[in-house]
Amino acid sequence: MASVEDLKQQIEALQRELCQMKASSSGGAREKIEKMSSEVVDSNPYSRLMALQRMGIVNEYERIRQKSVAVVGVGGVGSVTADMLTRCGIGKLILFDYDKVELANMNRLFFTPDQAGLSKVEAAAKTLNFINPDVKILTNNYNITTVDSFDMFLNAIKTGGVEEGTPVDLVLSCVDNFEARMAINTACNELSLNWFESGVSENAVSGHIQFIRPGETACFACAPPLVVAENIDEKTLKREGVCAASLPTTMGIVAGMLVQNTLKYLLNFGTVSDYLGYNALIDFFPKMSLKPNPTCDDRFCMERQKDYAARPKAEVVEEVVEEDTPLHEENLYGIELVAEDETQGAQPSTGTPNTISSGLKLAYEAPAVTSHSDTTPTNAVGDDVSLDDLMAQMKSM
Amino acid sequence: MASVEDLKQQIEALQRELCQMKASSSGGAREKIEKMSSEVVDSNPYSRLMALQRMGIVNEYERIRQKSVAVVGVGGVGSVTADMLTRCGIGKLILFDYDKVELANMNRLFFTPDQAGLSKVEAAAKTLNFINPDVKILTNNYNITTVDSFDMFLNAIKTGGVEEGTPVDLVLSCVDNFEARMAINTACNELSLNWFESGVSENAVSGHIQFIRPGETACFACAPPLVVAENIDEKTLKREGVCAASLPTTMGIVAGMLVQNTLKYLLNFGTVSDYLGYNALIDFFPKMSLKPNPTCDDRFCMERQKDYAARPKAEVVEEVVEEDTPLHEENLYGIELVAEDETQGAQPSTGTPNTISSGLKLAYEAPAVTSHSDTTPTNAVGDDVSLDDLMAQMKSM
Repeated sequence: MASVEDLKQQIEALQRELCQMKASSSGGAREKIEKMSSEVVDSNPYSRLMALQRMGIVNEYERIRQKSVAVVGVGGVGSVTADMLTRCGIGKLILFDYDKVELANMNRLFFTPDQAGLSKVEAAAKTLNFINPDVKILTNNYNITTVDSFDMFLNAIKTGGVEEGTPVDLVLSCVDNFEARMAINTACNELSLNWFESGVSENAVSGHIQFIRPGETACFACAPPLVVAENIDEKTLKREGVCAASLPTTMGIVAGMLVQNTLKYLLNFGTVSDYLGYNALIDFFPKMSLKPNPTCDDRFCMERQKDYAARPKAEVVEEVVEEDTPLHEENLYGIELVAEDETQGAQPSTGTPNTISSGLKLAYEAPAVTSHSDTTPTNAVGDDVSLDDLMAQMKSM
Repeated sequence: MASVEDLKQQIEALQRELCQMKASSSGGAREKIEKMSSEVVDSNPYSRLMALQRMGIVNEYERIRQKSVAVVGVGGVGSVTADMLTRCGIGKLILFDYDKVELANMNRLFFTPDQAGLSKVEAAAKTLNFINPDVKILTNNYNITTVDSFDMFLNAIKTGGVEEGTPVDLVLSCVDNFEARMAINTACNELSLNWFESGVSENAVSGHIQFIRPGETACFACAPPLVVAENIDEKTLKREGVCAASLPTTMGIVAGMLVQNTLKYLLNFGTVSDYLGYNALIDFFPKMSLKPNPTCDDRFCMERQKDYAARPKAEVVEEVVEEDTPLHEENLYGIELVAEDETQGAQPSTGTPNTISSGLKLAYEAPAVTSHSDTTPTNAVGDDVSLDDLMAQMKSM
């Protein structure tokens, strides 16, 4: 029979092993950081982001901590979107999804096989919090298209700002169906909240992002897809044993385009694209701008259009000007800046300096102004083109 | 004093806890899968990739298991590149890096704070193996630019194919300095191996990928950056307390462009871009093709140019034709295919059908052929443009 001394030694050994296991499983989760520092040391997770200031790209990067973004849909695009925003140190993220992680999702980035079966928002929040504990992450595990949940969703984005009771700064739609897009559209029109819509085709080789500013650009109901306009139930389109294709590449690129434009919008640098498409087969990236439909079915869209028409245009520009002068302290790396291209559609919510300081060199040349007539290769559409013209153009393709 | 019975109970409790800890820490790592299946069930990690066949995009997706890719540099671009290829089920990945993970890397995707201090290749291999145990992953923890290590690198890519002793199918350069790019260039010219170069600017808002086929397109030494041409030591350009900026968005997009073109090349679909740039400030994506320099300093490049000139052009085309007819079993989702745009530069190594089957609709319109004269907005440069012409054009910008 074992002596008491033996048993005690056994207990000590087990306790040591358990202690080591616990240490290594929770190990490395970094401490919170109160203030973003630009100090160039290996232990500073923000040094490469704060360097955007020295490079003359962003003025006062730390403003990102005052921003709150809602990510609706935490799948192939939404999870990578949340990951990027978390690593950029966004102030607050509000996640919406009601789905579970499956092994069938492992062909996209972010989720890992051990998370199969967990709710997407809970699994994502755990990983994101581990990556950057400075970001406040809220999860909402429900379907925003049901009547009750829609009200909860509306209230969550209406009061989800970094400052208690203020709305979020931006809503990002990363959902995979039209019903959810319409719900987001309805909520954002009612609250007059800017949002980005995103999508990836079912054959996995194209995608797009679209910036919707209620009253100023076309909303999702202004030019609805056929399936929405004809009130077809999407579920009737899906068949047993058949699924859409997807690729981590296409979804990663669409998430990258979405978050890059989110950063440009929130931190006032570069030019935010109204619409940016991606065709993976030929690496083609069309851009365009769409005006609102003056007979849109959404009554809040019609109200926002009236608001926008009544708003003095100078006021819109003023919002930007206060922050759009980049710092040019030094030019150690041969900074590359590109002049704003006036033909890309007016984007009053952002600003890029029109002139290039001496000593700076241009990155890729922007498309020549003269080539942007009618139907240019990038499909850029001027602000003067009506929806009817566009519809006619699309039909003739 | 504790009784023997108490101590035994204590031991049992500790053993139970330890057992649970061990189970949850190794939990969820999925079993290997012998053959890729297209069955549409939640537990199949390949269903969304195999769906590319039904969608008519890829012919026999499972060929990816016969492909081996070397990823040189496992940083902001390389780690995401390896992650995407792993989730796509690539046969074999060979990773090269000699750096350690730092908290300062947490502003890009992939690595997590608990990995700080670990070697990048080891940390990456562990995560990738956990995500997809079907991929064979080899790690090489050395600097490829030293004399001895260069020989090891050359040998690793010369014999690193899925079939023992054959070369890898492709080399992806994801390094952050010109010295390493020149080492890869030298090795690939000597071995006549196709490779992609990639890069992100130090201000974090532009990037590019470039497809280099020795003898057929310009190699890295054909038109070297100034710092290489003038033999400047890059280290002298860096200053204490100053670091380059970086963003997860830009790096994720560049990795996405790199892996998307890798998939198109390895699985013969779409058109592989010779050069694809990305300007984040205005969402501009220039493309071009570069011919080799007939007086290139690299003697193997000169040999490859002779080989290429001597190669009957028909043979080059033949390599492709055997596999480039996509399956069109069904068209459940309104498949979108885009015709090859002949003006994008000849890419004999890939093929897209020139005609569109009836019932298929076009995704984004390809740039109109007529608009691709001289300096088009996408900077497409025909194969007939000489390097001198290009240099002259660039100087005049």
